Amino acid sequence: MKQNIYDNPIFFHQYKVLRQKELNYNRLLEQPTMKSLLPPLTNSDILDIGCGMGEFAKYCIDHQAKHVTALDVSSNMLAMAKQEHAHPQIDYQLQAIEDYEGPSYSFDCITSSLSLHYVKDFDAVIDRIARMLRHNGVFVFSVEHPIATARQAMEDNWIYDDEHNRLHYAIDHYHEEGLREQTWLVEGVVKYHRTIATMINTLIAHGLTIEKIVEPLPSKEAILQLPSLEKELRRPSFLFIKAKK
Amino acid sequence: MKQNIYDNPIFFHQYKVLRQKELNYNRLLEQPTMKSLLPPLTNSDILDIGCGMGEFAKYCIDHQAKHVTALDVSSNMLAMAKQEHAHPQIDYQLQAIEDYEGPSYSFDCITSSLSLHYVKDFDAVIDRIARMLRHNGVFVFSVEHPIATARQAMEDNWIYDDEHNRLHYAIDHYHEEGLREQTWLVEGVVKYHRTIATMINTLIAHGLTIEKIVEPLPSKEAILQLPSLEKELRRPSFLFIKAKK
Repeated sequence: MKQNIYDNPIFFHQYKVLRQKELNYNRLLEQPTMKSLLPPLTNSDILDIGCGMGEFAKYCIDHQAKHVTALDVSSNMLAMAKQEHAHPQIDYQLQAIEDYEGPSYSFDCITSSLSLHYVKDFDAVIDRIARMLRHNGVFVFSVEHPIATARQAMEDNWIYDDEHNRLHYAIDHYHEEGLREQTWLVEGVVKYHRTIATMINTLIAHGLTIEKIVEPLPSKEAILQLPSLEKELRRPSFLFIKAKK
Repeated sequence: MKQNIYDNPIFFHQYKVLRQKELNYNRLLEQPTMKSLLPPLTNSDILDIGCGMGEFAKYCIDHQAKHVTALDVSSNMLAMAKQEHAHPQIDYQLQAIEDYEGPSYSFDCITSSLSLHYVKDFDAVIDRIARMLRHNGVFVFSVEHPIATARQAMEDNWIYDDEHNRLHYAIDHYHEEGLREQTWLVEGVVKYHRTIATMINTLIAHGLTIEKIVEPLPSKEAILQLPSLEKELRRPSFLFIKAKK
């Protein structure tokens, strides 16, 4: 989370273009899955880690949440969030989760969409999240799937034949956890690869109970709208974990 | 489990040769991991599904278990088990888990090493296992890792360069659960691929709590003894799940 690629002006411009498309992975795959895993939001206090442009924070308020604390490390992102999704019950804060000192037992639900793979010290962040959750509170997060982050690849993990058909997806270095540098919109985007076992066991070690794992599949409708989503059948891009305190 | 490739004479002969080697994946990787995940065995009733040659059943008795019910579908395997690891506290039964009608709340620990990927109806088997466990009973099993079973491959999933160096591991069809036919010692070994999410969620749906996930790594010692184990760093062969009732 402390990596602030979103304040790189070239990255941010390209990211905005991508996200403003009606048809993207966030709208068609990640967000529907995240929303399907939420507990009832009525009257709840929510912490959203890596809130980006605030669409999800606003969704929570629209679904009767009492208050959303929405963190992001990018001032670009927060400027857009405050412009497009400002609301008196949403508190946008320029803050990395690693530095956020929220009070213990203060949230009914903590969410994070595709941001925890930017975190270097996963254990410390989960410790913090587990502490801030209320009893029976729910933590739902998505990350890039370890199958996708494993290989040290500046290039595409898809392997093609001579006619540019996808032959299969390449995996390697699965057990070498840590830094991965990638080109995504710009060069040098830094992520951290962790195994599935590490993520699940870290949650359990901090007293959380695993409620559900999702490796999301696009709906048929979504594939009709964005045919490239069909690749998700061949290997998962995202991993979701829902856990309870 | 109902597939009975182990009673195919060519397969069984080759399997015996493989297993009788001092250095194999079972002895150096699978069994040490399985043993590290067991609860204290003293005075416990154990069900071992796919007991093979009975080494593990005997291990449990040697570690103060009260009784082991050891199931296998192969009469070849059970003949060897009874010859090499007979014991008055071990009850070997020629039985598929799908057909085993054990009484409810009758086992403190249920184990299965590399056999549940032969099971077609995973949900029905987990339902049965959850029913037979005592309160606080532990279920530990290993299967071939979904990363390894995903691709419909009669051939090797490793991709090589012209000099036969391993370039990467191939994954594909991850979300197409079901039958996989493989050549392992003989042609036509049938396994069932399931996603990680499916396995974990099935356990949870049957009232079990996930305690630990392991994607085992060989020890340095084991790699010195069997250098091919180093490949485990690049992609996991096995997945272990430990759950509690």
